[in-house]
Amino acid sequence: MKHIAESTVRRLSLYLRFLEEFEAHGHQTISSGELASQGGTTSAQVRKDLSFFGSFGKRGLGYSVSDLSSRLREILGLGRPWKVVIVGAGKIGAALAQYRGFRERGFRIVGIYDVDPQSIGLALDGVTVRDQRDMETDLMSLNAEIALLAVPAEVAQPLTDRLVAAGIGAILNFASTPLHVPSHVTIRSVNMALELEILSYALVNRDA
Amino acid sequence: MKHIAESTVRRLSLYLRFLEEFEAHGHQTISSGELASQGGTTSAQVRKDLSFFGSFGKRGLGYSVSDLSSRLREILGLGRPWKVVIVGAGKIGAALAQYRGFRERGFRIVGIYDVDPQSIGLALDGVTVRDQRDMETDLMSLNAEIALLAVPAEVAQPLTDRLVAAGIGAILNFASTPLHVPSHVTIRSVNMALELEILSYALVNRDA
Repeated sequence: MKHIAESTVRRLSLYLRFLEEFEAHGHQTISSGELASQGGTTSAQVRKDLSFFGSFGKRGLGYSVSDLSSRLREILGLGRPWKVVIVGAGKIGAALAQYRGFRERGFRIVGIYDVDPQSIGLALDGVTVRDQRDMETDLMSLNAEIALLAVPAEVAQPLTDRLVAAGIGAILNFASTPLHVPSHVTIRSVNMALELEILSYALVNRDA
Repeated sequence: MKHIAESTVRRLSLYLRFLEEFEAHGHQTISSGELASQGGTTSAQVRKDLSFFGSFGKRGLGYSVSDLSSRLREILGLGRPWKVVIVGAGKIGAALAQYRGFRERGFRIVGIYDVDPQSIGLALDGVTVRDQRDMETDLMSLNAEIALLAVPAEVAQPLTDRLVAAGIGAILNFASTPLHVPSHVTIRSVNMALELEILSYALVNRDA
């Protein structure tokens, strides 16, 4: 498969959301125009995005909602559940553990780790926080694939190294520090303060 | 000022972080190469990013850490504090209210709003959750500029409309739905499930 830009993957994910809403309302077909207006883009963009993955629609008839949504789920790797661990059971880690949206999309939290004796043993939405020392053993036996890293910046790199050594293939990083991983591992960062800085930049420069 | 791509703003924000660390360690100058290696980019990219904003460095001498960081803070709109409100005091809203990183960067939480009688009156990191009905009155008197929207998808658009009508200029949206705002308002979305889908896409396609 060709390399697909992240912005495309992002739109595919949005289209899938609309298709699922359409499905829930009993609609059977959808036009590129309808998908475009929901996703804040153009029909041409929708057709281009979907054309990466072969031919879906029929001219004049639109797309079959159920065909297109199952194909998109497959493309996005959502045709199967994913095992996710959370490293760090502080405020962000705990909020992530309880985030409904993950389970709805097939991301199942199978482990949560911390070093704080006050956190270890707590149950967060049915998953018990375990000692970070048990992380490697657990990762091997659980076969977890994705890690959410919600730890202080100063320990983020050593923990990343441990996750990679234990076979984790993808990491979502909430620490405000860039992390280094080998090329076979995918890493993404969510940095709230940075998001706000992009807003403040827009606010100070909007009249420019 | 020219329009700067978001990816550039993102890198500027990262450079600023490294500069502040350098400053804390007592360093006075930094080369584009050092900034590049920290930011996972190239010296040429660093020089290009900084050249948007005029001439900073001296060939062979590098950049003055304090000059460059104060200039970057100014460019990013961080030379002043920003008043931020949080709409929705659920798990995400509460985690945001307690996120240290915001205050460190000058984003001050001045109000939190909810509709749930069980949440109203609670103090989150020193700020009391208030009834959403009081939101407009408060926004006017507080002169808040930025809103963090952490509410269920189905109420996100009407609340956005209320925030915009009350003069909010920038919104960070945590609901998993695209929102429409007039062109003078900046909106950004953080969608955790979507971030995970980009990872699952990478995992299923990594051998391609």
